[in-house]
Order: sequence, then C-alpha cells, then structure tokens
Amino acid sequence: MMFKETLVKDIPELKVHGRTTVCREPLTLFWTAGGFECNVTGSELWVELEVTYDVYEPWFSYTVNGDWVGRQMLPKGRYWVPLFRGMNPEKIKNMHFFKDLQAMSDDGNSYIHVHTLRHDGAFSPVADRRLKIEFIGDSITSGEGLFGAEQEQDWIPMFFSAVRGYTYQTAEKLDAEYRIFSQSGWGVHNTWDNNTRGAIPRYYKEICSLMPGSENERLGGNAPHDFASWQPDFVVVNLGTNDAASFDQPEFVDQYTKESHKMRREPDGTYRKEDMRSFQRAVKDFLALIRACNPGANIIWCYGMLGIDLQLYICEAVSAYARETGDSKVSYLQLPDTTSESVGSREHPGYLCHKQAAEVLAGYITKFL
Amino acid sequence: MMFKETLVKDIPELKVHGRTTVCREPLTLFWTAGGFECNVTGSELWVELEVTYDVYEPWFSYTVNGDWVGRQMLPKGRYWVPLFRGMNPEKIKNMHFFKDLQAMSDDGNSYIHVHTLRHDGAFSPVADRRLKIEFIGDSITSGEGLFGAEQEQDWIPMFFSAVRGYTYQTAEKLDAEYRIFSQSGWGVHNTWDNNTRGAIPRYYKEICSLMPGSENERLGGNAPHDFASWQPDFVVVNLGTNDAASFDQPEFVDQYTKESHKMRREPDGTYRKEDMRSFQRAVKDFLALIRACNPGANIIWCYGMLGIDLQLYICEAVSAYARETGDSKVSYLQLPDTTSESVGSREHPGYLCHKQAAEVLAGYITKFL
Amino acid sequence: MMFKETLVKDIPELKVHGRTTVCREPLTLFWTAGGFECNVTGSELWVELEVTYDVYEPWFSYTVNGDWVGRQMLPKGRYWVPLFRGMNPEKIKNMHFFKDLQAMSDDGNSYIHVHTLRHDGAFSPVADRRLKIEFIGDSITSGEGLFGAEQEQDWIPMFFSAVRGYTYQTAEKLDAEYRIFSQSGWGVHNTWDNNTRGAIPRYYKEICSLMPGSENERLGGNAPHDFASWQPDFVVVNLGTNDAASFDQPEFVDQYTKESHKMRREPDGTYRKEDMRSFQRAVKDFLALIRACNPGANIIWCYGMLGIDLQLYICEAVSAYARETGDSKVSYLQLPDTTSESVGSREHPGYLCHKQAAEVLAGYITKFL
Amino acid sequence: MMFKETLVKDIPELKVHGRTTVCREPLTLFWTAGGFECNVTGSELWVELEVTYDVYEPWFSYTVNGDWVGRQMLPKGRYWVPLFRGMNPEKIKNMHFFKDLQAMSDDGNSYIHVHTLRHDGAFSPVADRRLKIEFIGDSITSGEGLFGAEQEQDWIPMFFSAVRGYTYQTAEKLDAEYRIFSQSGWGVHNTWDNNTRGAIPRYYKEICSLMPGSENERLGGNAPHDFASWQPDFVVVNLGTNDAASFDQPEFVDQYTKESHKMRREPDGTYRKEDMRSFQRAVKDFLALIRACNPGANIIWCYGMLGIDLQLYICEAVSAYARETGDSKVSYLQLPDTTSESVGSREHPGYLCHKQAAEVLAGYITKFL
Repeated sequence: MMFKETLVKDIPELKVHGRTTVCREPLTLFWTAGGFECNVTGSELWVELEVTYDVYEPWFSYTVNGDWVGRQMLPKGRYWVPLFRGMNPEKIKNMHFFKDLQAMSDDGNSYIHVHTLRHDGAFSPVADRRLKIEFIGDSITSGEGLFGAEQEQDWIPMFFSAVRGYTYQTAEKLDAEYRIFSQSGWGVHNTWDNNTRGAIPRYYKEICSLMPGSENERLGGNAPHDFASWQPDFVVVNLGTNDAASFDQPEFVDQYTKESHKMRREPDGTYRKEDMRSFQRAVKDFLALIRACNPGANIIWCYGMLGIDLQLYICEAVSAYARETGDSKVSYLQLPDTTSESVGSREHPGYLCHKQAAEVLAGYITKFL
Repeated sequence: MMFKETLVKDIPELKVHGRTTVCREPLTLFWTAGGFECNVTGSELWVELEVTYDVYEPWFSYTVNGDWVGRQMLPKGRYWVPLFRGMNPEKIKNMHFFKDLQAMSDDGNSYIHVHTLRHDGAFSPVADRRLKIEFIGDSITSGEGLFGAEQEQDWIPMFFSAVRGYTYQTAEKLDAEYRIFSQSGWGVHNTWDNNTRGAIPRYYKEICSLMPGSENERLGGNAPHDFASWQPDFVVVNLGTNDAASFDQPEFVDQYTKESHKMRREPDGTYRKEDMRSFQRAVKDFLALIRACNPGANIIWCYGMLGIDLQLYICEAVSAYARETGDSKVSYLQLPDTTSESVGSREHPGYLCHKQAAEVLAGYITKFL
Repeated sequence: MMFKETLVKDIPELKVHGRTTVCREPLTLFWTAGGFECNVTGSELWVELEVTYDVYEPWFSYTVNGDWVGRQMLPKGRYWVPLFRGMNPEKIKNMHFFKDLQAMSDDGNSYIHVHTLRHDGAFSPVADRRLKIEFIGDSITSGEGLFGAEQEQDWIPMFFSAVRGYTYQTAEKLDAEYRIFSQSGWGVHNTWDNNTRGAIPRYYKEICSLMPGSENERLGGNAPHDFASWQPDFVVVNLGTNDAASFDQPEFVDQYTKESHKMRREPDGTYRKEDMRSFQRAVKDFLALIRACNPGANIIWCYGMLGIDLQLYICEAVSAYARETGDSKVSYLQLPDTTSESVGSREHPGYLCHKQAAEVLAGYITKFL
Repeated sequence: MMFKETLVKDIPELKVHGRTTVCREPLTLFWTAGGFECNVTGSELWVELEVTYDVYEPWFSYTVNGDWVGRQMLPKGRYWVPLFRGMNPEKIKNMHFFKDLQAMSDDGNSYIHVHTLRHDGAFSPVADRRLKIEFIGDSITSGEGLFGAEQEQDWIPMFFSAVRGYTYQTAEKLDAEYRIFSQSGWGVHNTWDNNTRGAIPRYYKEICSLMPGSENERLGGNAPHDFASWQPDFVVVNLGTNDAASFDQPEFVDQYTKESHKMRREPDGTYRKEDMRSFQRAVKDFLALIRACNPGANIIWCYGMLGIDLQLYICEAVSAYARETGDSKVSYLQLPDTTSESVGSREHPGYLCHKQAAEVLAGYITKFL
C-alpha cells in the first residue's frame, strides 16, 4: 500500500461544488455546501485543509457512497484530515466533502482551503447528475438550527448544516447537483434588523462579494461570477422571512454614514404602502437579475418555513414581474411551516421541517421534468 | 325499556348542522355535512328518515361519542334507521349524523329529511364548540374521491364523504362547529367545463339555491340565507381548481340560450389577459360578498390540493382586494398537493392528502386564536 | 335496465368466506369475516338478508373493488340492503360482504342469513388468492375495540370489526383468503374469568359449536367441520391473553353443576406450577389438534398485543410440542403491544396496533413463501 | 478569556461512562459508548486524546446539551480535538463524549485514552439519571451497520455507531445511564463461525478481557470488574443471532490447538439436539452468571432484530432457568425484525430498525417502573 499525495489542481476528475474562483492551488470553499466530490479506488483517503478564521470557525461534513459518515469542527491551521480507511481497495468509492458553514459576512477570514488528497488509489470522473439547482436564501437555506438542542440560542457555526437541509435533501430526491447562495439574517430588500446592505441581490453577480475585507479580495471572491460556466435548470429563491421581520425591528443606523433605514407599519398595523412597494420592487428586480444571469432557468420563489406574513405581497410581485416581462418560467411555492414538532435549535426549522419542505419542493420540481 | 318517538321539532336540545331552513317538521339536509347532533341517555337510538332522489341517492355517516361508527346508502322512502343499541342507559351519548353527499345540483330531488327519533332516554343540550368555520369549495371540499379504489371513475354518491375530508378533520382539531357550501366541478367564475352558471358566488346568499326545480322551491332552498343566525369566525374558501381546468376545456354552449363561454389561453400558452382579469374580478367580488355577509370573519383563501396553476393570480386578486378595501382579515394559504401516495379515487385527493391539508390549515388557524 | 333477483344457491360464481354449512338457501354467516364475494357487471347490486338475534345484533361491512365503502347495523327481519348503484354497467365490480360481529356464544339467535342478490348484470368467477390463512383467537382476533371512542366500555356489537383488524390487513398484504375462528374473552384453557367451557380448542372440530341452543343445531353449526374442504397454508393462533388474565380473576362456579375452577398464583406471586402445567398442556394439545386437522399448514402461535405475561410459558409449550412430535412447521411470533397511542375502545388494541401487528405478521409469513 | 488545561483525574465532577479501570491518568475507553460527560461553563472546550491502533482506528461522537453535533475518525497519536467554541460562557453546557467503536477483539492496540480538557469555565457535577441499564450483545448492540450506504460490505470502524443504536435511544427515552458489553460476530455459546472462544459469557467478569495482548494487560482490561461499583437496574441481553448463524457455517478449527467445533443440523434440517442443549445450557449459565453479578437487576433477554430462528429455544432456556432457580426477575422480549425499509449497511439493522427496537424495549421497561 503506497500512499500518494496529489494536489487538487492535479486531479481533473475531481468535481468542485459551489461558486468559487478558478484557482485550484488551493481550492477555496466559500458557501454552504461548497466542496468537492471524487470517485477513487484504494483503501484510504485523507484531505489536506488550510483553515482560517477570526471568529467563526468552519465545520465540514462528508458522505461516502452517498451516506453521511462524519462531521467536525475545523480549527485554524494547515493539516491532514482522514476521511476513510480500511475500505476494499478495488472498489470505487464516492466521497463528497461539504462545507457546513455559510460564507460568514461577519468574519472576513473564515475560509476552508483544500490543498491535497492523500490516497492509495486512482481517480475516475464523477458522473453528471440529471439536474442543476441553485438555492438562494437566508438562514433557512444556510441550514441554521439544524444542529443543536431546541433551547440553544448561541449564533455559532456548530448549529449550521449543509447536509441536513432541504437543499441537500431536495437535490438527492431529484438526482441534482446544487449550489447555495445564502446568508443568515438577510433578505431581498434588507436584513431582519433593517440594514439595506444585507440585501442578497446586491451580491448575486460576484463569486462571493458579501465576504468583507482584503482576504476576500485576495482570494478573488469579489470578482464577477462566470454564470456561463454553470447554468442551473432551476433557481430556487427562498427569501422574505427577514424582510418580514424588519417591519417589527428598530431602525438601523449605519455607524459610519449615520444613514438610517426602517421598514414601517401604519398606525393600524398594516405594512406602510411605500415600504411595501420598495420590498416588492426588490422582488421584481431580483427576478429580473436572476433571469438575466440564467436565461434558461425555471425560477421558483419559495417561502413559508417560518411563517407566511409577506406571502401575498411576494406573490403579487412575482405575478407582476411575470406579466410585465412575459417571463413564463417563474412561479411561487409555499413551503411547510415550522411547528412545535418540527422546530430545530435557535427557533429555526429543524430536520423534520426541512424534510417536509424537500418533499414538497422536489414534488413540485418533478412536475416540470 | 320504553321507547319514545319524538319529532325532531320537539327536541329543542338537538343541534342542527349546515345551512337549512327553519322548518323542523321535517328537518331537511341540503349540504355535505348537513346533519344534526344530540346528547341523549338511554340504550338505543333510531332515526326516521325520508329520502328522495331521481338519480343520486344520498349516503350518511355518523359518529357516537366522536368516533365514526357507520356509513350507508339511503334508498328512497320513509323508514327507520338504527344508530345504536345496547349501550349503558345511564350515560349520555353524543350522536352526530352527517349527510355524506353534497347538494346535488344535477338532481333536484336528492334530499334527506329527518322526521323523528326513537329512543328510551332523555335529551340534553349539546355544548357549543370553541369556533365556527364555514368551508366554501368544490369537489375537494365535497369530499369527492375519499371513498373508492384508486381506479374508480364513476361519478357516484358512494365516493363522496363528509367525515373523511379536511373539513371535518380541521374542525375536530380546532374544536369547531362547521358548515360546508360546495359543489363538485364548480369554481369562482365558472365550472371546469366553462359553464358560468356554475359559479359558486352566485348562490352564496341563499340557503341552497344551486338545487334546481320545484321541490327545492317548495322546501325553501331558494330563500335568502339568514347570515345573522350563524356568523363564522373563519370562512375558508377552497376554490380555483375548476377555474384552472376550464382554460384547457372546450367552449361551453348553453343548450337553450345558445350562449357560449370559454376561458382561453394565448397562442404562447399563457392565460388570456382578459379572461384572467375576469377570473380575478370574480375572486375579488366573492371576497367582498363574503365580507358583506360575515362582517367579523377571518377569511382564508386556500388552494393547492390539486395543483397550484392559478396560485399567483389568486394571490394577486386577494392582495388587491385587501389593499383596495383595507380589509386586513383576509389571507391566502397553500394546501398540500395530491401525490401518488395520497391520491384517492377519481384522481382526487385521498384521505392522506386531506389529513395533511387539515394539519396545515388547523395549524394556520391556530395562529389567529 | 332490468333487475334480476337470483338466489345465492343459484350463483355458482359466488365465493363464500368463513366456516359455514353446505346450505346455500340461505347462506348462514357464523363467524367474524364470514361473508361472500362476487364479481358482477351491471350498475346496481342489492342483497336480501335475514337477520335474527335476541341480544346482540349483527353488523356488516363491505368493500367494492377492494375499498371499504360501508358499514351498518342490521336490525331483525328479512329485507333488502343496497350495496352499490349508478356504477358503470360494463365493468366487473368485485363486492365483498363481511360479517363484522363474531359468532356470539352469548346469543344463540344472532345470525345473518343471505338469501338473494338483486342486480342488472352477470356474475363471473372470483379468482383464487395466493394463500389461505386461518386465524384463531379471542377478542383481539374478533376485532373488539376497533370502533368506538377510547372511553367506551359497553360490550356491544358496534365496537367489533372484521375489516379494521390485523386479520384483514395481513390477508390483504399477502393476497390471502382468510377465515376467523375466535371468541372474545376465551382462551386456550379457559376464559378470562376461569370458565373452562370457554376453551377455544373444545370447539375447533365443528363448524361453529360454540353457539348455544336449538337454532344452531337446526342450522348445522354443531356439525363436524369438513377440514378437507379448505386447507389453510397458515394457521395463526393468537391466544393466551385471557388465560393470563384468569390468574388474577375470581374462581368461576358453574351455576348448574356447581363445579368451580380457578387458575391460581403461588403466595410469592408466581403462577402455580400445576395450573401452568395445565395451561401448557392445553397449548400442546391444541397444536396437536390443529396439526391433525391441517396436515400441511404452517402453524404460527402469535401473542403480545395485550402484554406478554405468558410468553415464556407459551414458547416452552410450543417448543416442547415441536420437539416431542418432530413437527417442524410450528413457530412462535410476538406481536406489537398496545400503547397509549395505539389503543382503541374498551382498552383493546386499536387500528394502529392492528396495523403494526399486520406488518409484523405479514413480514414473518413472507419469509416462508 | 483564559484557557485552563485540566487533567481528567483532576476533574471529580466528570462522569465516566462504560466499564473501565480506576485509572484516570489517562482515562481509557474500552467499549462502545464508553466515554465521559461533563457539565461546564465557559465558551470553549477541547479534549486531549491519545489514540492507538494497529488495524481498526476508533471513531467518536459527541453531544452538546443532549444533541448530537459531531463524529470523526481518530488517527493515531496524542492531540487536541475541539468540541465546542463560541458558546455563551455563563451557561452550563453538558458535553457527552462517546466511543463509537466497540472493543475490537481483533486489534489489541485499539484504544482511546483521555488525558486532559482545555476550557475557560468551571465544572459542576452531572446529575444521576433515573435508571442504570447494561446492554450485552453482538454487532447489533455494537451498532454495526448504522452508518454507511446499504451496499457497503467492508467490516470497518466507520460503520459502527454508539449514538444511533437502540441502546442510546432506549436510554434517552428512559432517562437512563447505560453501558454496553458487546462484540460483533459473537454469541452466547460461540461465534457466527463456530469459534467457542467468542462466547460473550466467558469475558463478562472482567473489565474488558476480550481484548487480546500485552497492552490490554498493561491497561488493566483483564482485571476483574468491580460489579459493586455500578449495579444496573436492568440488564438487557441481546444475543443469539450469531449462535443461530453458526448452524449453517463450516466447522471452526483452531489454528494452534487444531481443536474444532461446529453447531450441527440433523439430516432433516432441524437443529441437532445435543448442540441445541449446549446452546440452551449456555443461555441458562449466562443468566445465572448475570444474576450472580447483579443481584437486584431485572434481566431481559431480547432477540429478533435479525430474525427469530432460535426464539423458541431461547425462551425455553430462559423459562427453565427461571423455574429451576425461582428467579422471577427474568423475562424475554422479541424486538422488531429488520425489513427492506429498515436495513442499514452490511445487511444489519439500520437506524429505523434500531428506533423501532428502542420504542418496544423502552415501552417494555416502562412497565416495570
């Protein structure tokens, strides 16, 4: 048994998942479910990672032959992590490595870099799946709350998960390759606490421009994303939950510019018409942007895993967008709400809710196939 | 053990369910889940029914102490039907009789009349439930397809059910009294086959004016409904499925007036704007009508148990209605779609789909309580 | 549409279910799930029944094309009952009529007799199923508690069911024809209240000799059963629950002979060895009897839906029987216990428990196929 | 934030799980679910492990506040592993570390040693649970097959799990502390391949004497176990599956002594009486041994998750043991069989089967409480 150490850049058979740059020395993982997949013979497999962060350490999960087998916190440093050993050396094993933590817009140094694989076998190509899906969302899509006891309130990486979410589950049901573009607390128009910088559409055209600071610049996260390189069959947008919350949160004041923003309610409790118009305009504009970037994709706006407060407004905006543009490949789907039985940690949807959502969403997508 | 025969009109403790006239000699049952409920001591209970029909015979189901125990076809004639016997005579039993068949607009003689109860006990009042709900809908709300093997295609009363539907199940979960106003094949604007006479809103203000002919006139079904007598806390409208179907059905031509109607698609497959506007106007007008009749009710438009083709349009109309009228007690809820696992007979939602719908709907209503 | 009335005796295509005599004018139904099945064209079907009883009225259920559609109490008298109408006259419909009530050893006049079918079609043969199963048991096998609210305590026919039980469900899963031989409260050795007349094995060789009195004699229920006429592939014995209970019940004293009997415990709470030996002897003797009557059958002793107090003793007896006789086609299977979630009325297993039992039993039987 | 490194021996509040020696510098983990649990404040927690093996590397899982959050392979060496960070420093966190791999009788160097905890908080005692349970078993109890895709056939540590098993789940339902004494492939009388050295009872009186070699001697694994130090309320024995298999496997020949052994069948396929007597004697002897070591425990022999071939024989032996000794605190319980839906990897029970088993077992144990 002879072990080889092969740089990721030297493994053309390796399939990279998630938006990232063209750099492979190392391969940088930005987003939830960013990662890589390989088919390999041999008895043993290790991966050499380089991990950085200031506050929020990344975690990863991985599957072997499609079954989830491990999950761990990644401390800072450059080191080898064992993935499997003792397996039948003749057989081809499929190994899929998932970043469990979202791109952390609050920590400009939180990254996983993948350098090298150590192994005693040979790589073979990973077959393409039937479909490609891009998921765009907030904490729900980032899998927040999918780990941790129900009473947990800490906002920490340990409670985020790629593989327990509706995204992974939907993709598995449909035999789809998928990518996630999501940020906890953010919305279409502003964050849960009224910060308009936390509007997902502002960052959609770059690889990962919501990560702040010079390290992201250096890594190329701020560079334009090459949409032509990966055109999804379906774009699933699951946004609106934080926009809804912002109507009941205090005004946000930018500490530098002193500019402030707040989504307001009328004295009778209804949403202020002007603010709602802004929200709906943001929905429509985002749909137009997604369409511009993904000309052939079926776009599904999803909503409802944490209540349906803005449902009618979202539907109105989606409908107006479709009518005004003649875009017939846009639709809306309500997802199952979180209940006391299906709740996870941090008052977020738990595994059961994500499972129900995946069933509904996969069933809906199937109708288009 | 001495049996008494007491006319329904002489039992003030008896609770009547469903829209009907003030006549109690006999009590006429028009709608799905129309019926009566009584609390009674004694060992035995029979009911004297008078049943008429030309084509579609009624069926009934009943519960004893809240548990469903029997269901049978009702042949023509006036006769006694046994409901229970041999029970502990001291205890109060609750018996609830449900018409399983909808008001049959195709058979102006299909009625159940309730004349008399035979018993050896004493009646006591039936306590009011926590809530009142009115369900307005089509075949789904009429419980079509809840009995019968999956391959059944006959359109017959045997396959309609009151007690297996989402209506009964939702009411049970919420401890609600409920009424059903529904007609298989009908919609907000027209029937599945483009007949504008089959628009549910046209009949909403009368007791049961969709039943044709002189017998219904004689029974008082065409008389105005006294809305003040029973004001629901929630009105659940589950319409749109047949309107959606009509876009893909041939033109309807009235055999007498030769007038014709059809909901059309544009050459590119989208809904014709003019027809969609008519549909949306019908949604808005119906909401206004429901509101006028039920000033304090929370109105929930539900949709989705057989697909969500018109969802965006319904939502747009509901939203426009709410904005234009300032009516804040109107909302929209998507219900679970029928799958190959949850389908019933006649390609309709089966028990499992209705169960899932009841969970979603009851959970949603609970948020308002 | 011309209706014919055809005597049961004149319908050779009709399949009779359950132990009964050779008489077909009328066909008498004795046991739970006793009934008949027919394949028939035409739009409508009625059955002419003759029903007698002193105390315990029979109920019946029926399926159309394998789906249960109706259930009702049968009052005394001879009359016609409608089963279906309005169906597509060209298609062959399968109709299966089930006696829901067990043979009632406490009411020597409780019978359903089937005289005639009224129809407008033609009969065709009912295909044989893959297997034949005989179920022998007590109230669990008689389906007691499968209808009625959880708090019900009345011992009445309304709460017995053929089609909700594990017997029907097991047979459906396995595509089996089945018969039931059961009596509520009875055991292998004695009844729950220590009456040795209520030992199921004493009646096994006759058609239905546990029904008392002259009417049963007249009907032929006391005549020997012709085992050769229907040899089961599997005999499932589900007995022991009442034997277990009898150790904690008072002595039974026969009111005529003054003979008494009681299964006793030792002062330390354990079962008295002598009484346990009697019980185990009864188990072994019954196995020998079943084997003698069904030479090729696979015999499965089941137990556990209401606790497993006697499990070790039953297993010991089954094992001893197998060893002593060299009979290798005998085994033992524990069935799922009743829980607070799966309980029905009268503290008996409910539908959920029977469903779980059917899954376990059908899975076990499948291993032999 | 100041981090302290505290030797395990200096943390009296730490609760050790699983049979082990009195040594705490380091604490050695031998068995499946061997581990430790602590209540600790502070934001961060690391553990210093020392891991050795020749062939079979250990894995561990851990829970934070009762929710499973991580699982990973442990390479050789002495190093720090991060468990949590970034948590609210004021709150007490409960952390429970589980060895996922069984004591590996085929690798005398496969151990986890726990040296030190690094933390920035303070420890407080872990409350006792309501019950103590000891589980004795084979691969099923070792959680083999609970990870890995269904097609996996490699016999490797990755596919063993402590926290997905019926043991953990049963303990959680009952609020019990538990220990596991198990070995894959072993039985009461011999291994699946007829090796009589693999008889679980032979090793029951020592701490962990089935581990071979000098390292185990050095660690104290061969020393007598101090039963008085931890008296279980329930001993659950789940053995017999491998004994059953051995009747259909070739003779085992010891490579050194040349002694051979085989459990045989008679020509007619039945178990040879003499061999069956040996098996049953082993069952009885083991019960006597368990009783001697655990005078007050309720002993439950479980069986059935991979078929019930020996059920009657086990029951007979259990029953004979109880009768002959007058031991009334012994019983037998059948556990749910593995189905095509509930199977895991390596043709072993999967998570669903273990979940069903835990429900049955916990429900049964509850009856004694």
